[in-house]
Amino acid sequence: MAIHIPFSAQTYIDRRNTLISNMSGGQVLLIANDESSINFADNLNPYRQDSTLLYYGALSIPDIAILIDADEGTSKLFADDVSMDMVVWTGPQESIKNLAAKIGITDVYPYADLKNHLRSQVHHLPPYRASQELRLRALLDKDQSSHSVELIKAVNSQRSIKTDEEISEIQKAVTLSKAMHAEVIKHIRPDIYEYELVAIASKFAHDHNVRWSFPPILTKNGQTLHNHYHGHKIEAGDIVLVDGGIEVASGYCGDITRTSAASGTFTAEQQEIYDLVHLMYKEAVRESKAGKRYLDVHLHTAKVLVEGLKDIGLMKGDTESAVKEGAHAMFFPHGLGHVMGLDVHDMENFGEQYIGYSETLQKSTQFGLKSLRLGKELETGNVITIEPGIYFIPELIEKFESQGKFKEFINYEMLNKKRNLGGIRIEDDFLVTENGVEMLGGDSPMP
Amino acid sequence: MAIHIPFSAQTYIDRRNTLISNMSGGQVLLIANDESSINFADNLNPYRQDSTLLYYGALSIPDIAILIDADEGTSKLFADDVSMDMVVWTGPQESIKNLAAKIGITDVYPYADLKNHLRSQVHHLPPYRASQELRLRALLDKDQSSHSVELIKAVNSQRSIKTDEEISEIQKAVTLSKAMHAEVIKHIRPDIYEYELVAIASKFAHDHNVRWSFPPILTKNGQTLHNHYHGHKIEAGDIVLVDGGIEVASGYCGDITRTSAASGTFTAEQQEIYDLVHLMYKEAVRESKAGKRYLDVHLHTAKVLVEGLKDIGLMKGDTESAVKEGAHAMFFPHGLGHVMGLDVHDMENFGEQYIGYSETLQKSTQFGLKSLRLGKELETGNVITIEPGIYFIPELIEKFESQGKFKEFINYEMLNKKRNLGGIRIEDDFLVTENGVEMLGGDSPMP
Repeated sequence: MAIHIPFSAQTYIDRRNTLISNMSGGQVLLIANDESSINFADNLNPYRQDSTLLYYGALSIPDIAILIDADEGTSKLFADDVSMDMVVWTGPQESIKNLAAKIGITDVYPYADLKNHLRSQVHHLPPYRASQELRLRALLDKDQSSHSVELIKAVNSQRSIKTDEEISEIQKAVTLSKAMHAEVIKHIRPDIYEYELVAIASKFAHDHNVRWSFPPILTKNGQTLHNHYHGHKIEAGDIVLVDGGIEVASGYCGDITRTSAASGTFTAEQQEIYDLVHLMYKEAVRESKAGKRYLDVHLHTAKVLVEGLKDIGLMKGDTESAVKEGAHAMFFPHGLGHVMGLDVHDMENFGEQYIGYSETLQKSTQFGLKSLRLGKELETGNVITIEPGIYFIPELIEKFESQGKFKEFINYEMLNKKRNLGGIRIEDDFLVTENGVEMLGGDSPMP
Repeated sequence: MAIHIPFSAQTYIDRRNTLISNMSGGQVLLIANDESSINFADNLNPYRQDSTLLYYGALSIPDIAILIDADEGTSKLFADDVSMDMVVWTGPQESIKNLAAKIGITDVYPYADLKNHLRSQVHHLPPYRASQELRLRALLDKDQSSHSVELIKAVNSQRSIKTDEEISEIQKAVTLSKAMHAEVIKHIRPDIYEYELVAIASKFAHDHNVRWSFPPILTKNGQTLHNHYHGHKIEAGDIVLVDGGIEVASGYCGDITRTSAASGTFTAEQQEIYDLVHLMYKEAVRESKAGKRYLDVHLHTAKVLVEGLKDIGLMKGDTESAVKEGAHAMFFPHGLGHVMGLDVHDMENFGEQYIGYSETLQKSTQFGLKSLRLGKELETGNVITIEPGIYFIPELIEKFESQGKFKEFINYEMLNKKRNLGGIRIEDDFLVTENGVEMLGGDSPMP
């Protein structure tokens, strides 16, 4: 099986050297993701390497580690060639030595030697899989792993600013993501089941020899934000929300949302809300640029929402106060967007405070704002999503009304009449530039 | 999202009572599988519950546990209702109390209380995911989990004998598995890529709102036994091996292999090998029945193979000696089959010695035989696969020839001429009865 290495050895050498120069010292330990078992050890989910290991060393192989020495300025690969016994099961594989050369590493050791090469100051990232935690405990002789904030900051400073060759990979991923949406949308019609539309999306990914960047949200109940249930039959009058994306072989992602009318045309009541989401989207695109706090773009979009809902009659009162108190979150309980790259929520496992916020900007705890993954100033070279939405969540309406919450801003009488309207979201991916944002993956029609 | 519970509450009560009566005492702890992260904590593989928890308690929900008390004869469910905060993300869910009633449990506690309910003798199964290991260590205050052999034996004695209602679920899974194969085979032709055929299989599963029981092996290089690379273009003259299956909502599996000629017709050289595999298959079906050691069926099939290869001229010498020394494993390096049920390799994580062997029958360490997952006497109610194959593995041929291995049994000169012939396997699923085996999922055409 060919191991895909998207960039030149020099790219990986340069990336590791930049990391070394950003660290005060010590060793940086990048351990590979293990295989991930489904219901017994040998029944495996598709393998996905850790994104930071992909960034500094490309090799999509389990049971390896890269040790970058910020004191000595060197990099070592710990990995084992496939045994003859395994060749029967997995076929012949390229030698580890050859693969190491392709990422600019000449120092190769058996994985079992890794522990002997570790000194006292070992930096690692926060584990997001239990298997990583177990490996770290065993390697570092600790009861509990403790990640390095210095390393988080150093890696973030590199991975958050995309180079031209990364942007070119993301363009591919987003282009395919949009094509996948177009294919799904073509099949949306009354009487089709949600899972049959998922089947279209799945076939599209396999037909292009790529994978989903995440299991798609594909639902007639878009008001349930992370809905992975696909058992419903689509009926005329339904709204169908599809949030999905493609990951290309290099590991870079796309993340696109489209919302469509099952029967091809929204009702007047649905169209009114769709148009308002589209206006929020256009305003967010217009406001976003390097130097702008994304929190401010989010809040601007929230104001556009409140103004629009006031026009419709669903909200009332002072717009500024409504947004300040978080009343808009009744309809827009999530954030406007997030950074994207090798992870669809790029580096989310590092901790959102480090990735989306800063020392001078703490994440809010207010309902709605606490789900904004990115608040800090945008920088040239960031890749972000812009994904406003409006949702009618019956359980939330019921709860807030019974608590008398936001009654000076919400017209509950009208809202209860529209409580089954569902959810609408529009999402595209953008490169942040000095003067604005540039849509990735080319233009694509909105439903 | 509806939680699927395939059987009546009484079925689960009966299963747990049987387990209780099979245990000498203590508590049986069944912990749910956690969600499984891909490249950051919130990007999740499709959720799959642990099969033993499904068997005794059906609920496909993470972060729960069932505690079966073999001293007191009671069962408790530890689980939490979804919070209002989560309802926004996941939608409304059926209450844990209602779900517990559907599996015949009335004692429900918050998950956080679990540790307080554990006494000194807690039986659990071997973990196959790192997250299970971490949970067990935390719950039991241990540095390392230690599973209960008594529990393995008790669970195996139940799960290995399928009831009528289980067989009916397996019939569904195998029927769908065969239909998926038929759909893929329809599309096999020169110039199609392996991944485009995977796309057909993926669409089939989603279209039926089910999932694969394992990521399919679909390859023109069937000689690589667990080949999950799908990047090749199929050419005229290629042999295409597809090993895949469907898992239905209840968790029960199918596992079918078909091997086809890319251009519709095998060459004479390929047909000769295909016919021999088919003969091995028919002989294995004929030999299998309750009371028969599956090891003996495997060895009988190996003899059929050697006789056939001697006719072709690829092998020579005494058949009995060739099989005794393991020379057939050059062509047939894996086992004839395995038990199947809620796992496609049923209960494999318990340890093959317990599931496929017995106190009086130890697993062999010989190349080939060491990959036979099931050796012991078949019992009425077992569900097994029968899956003979013949493979031409260039790396293995090279290695064995250079070592002078099996030179009294192998005609290396002819073998080297055929070294690129590839791999052929035929696999079906069977219920073991007193007098023989019964094919599951109905008849289906062989390519």
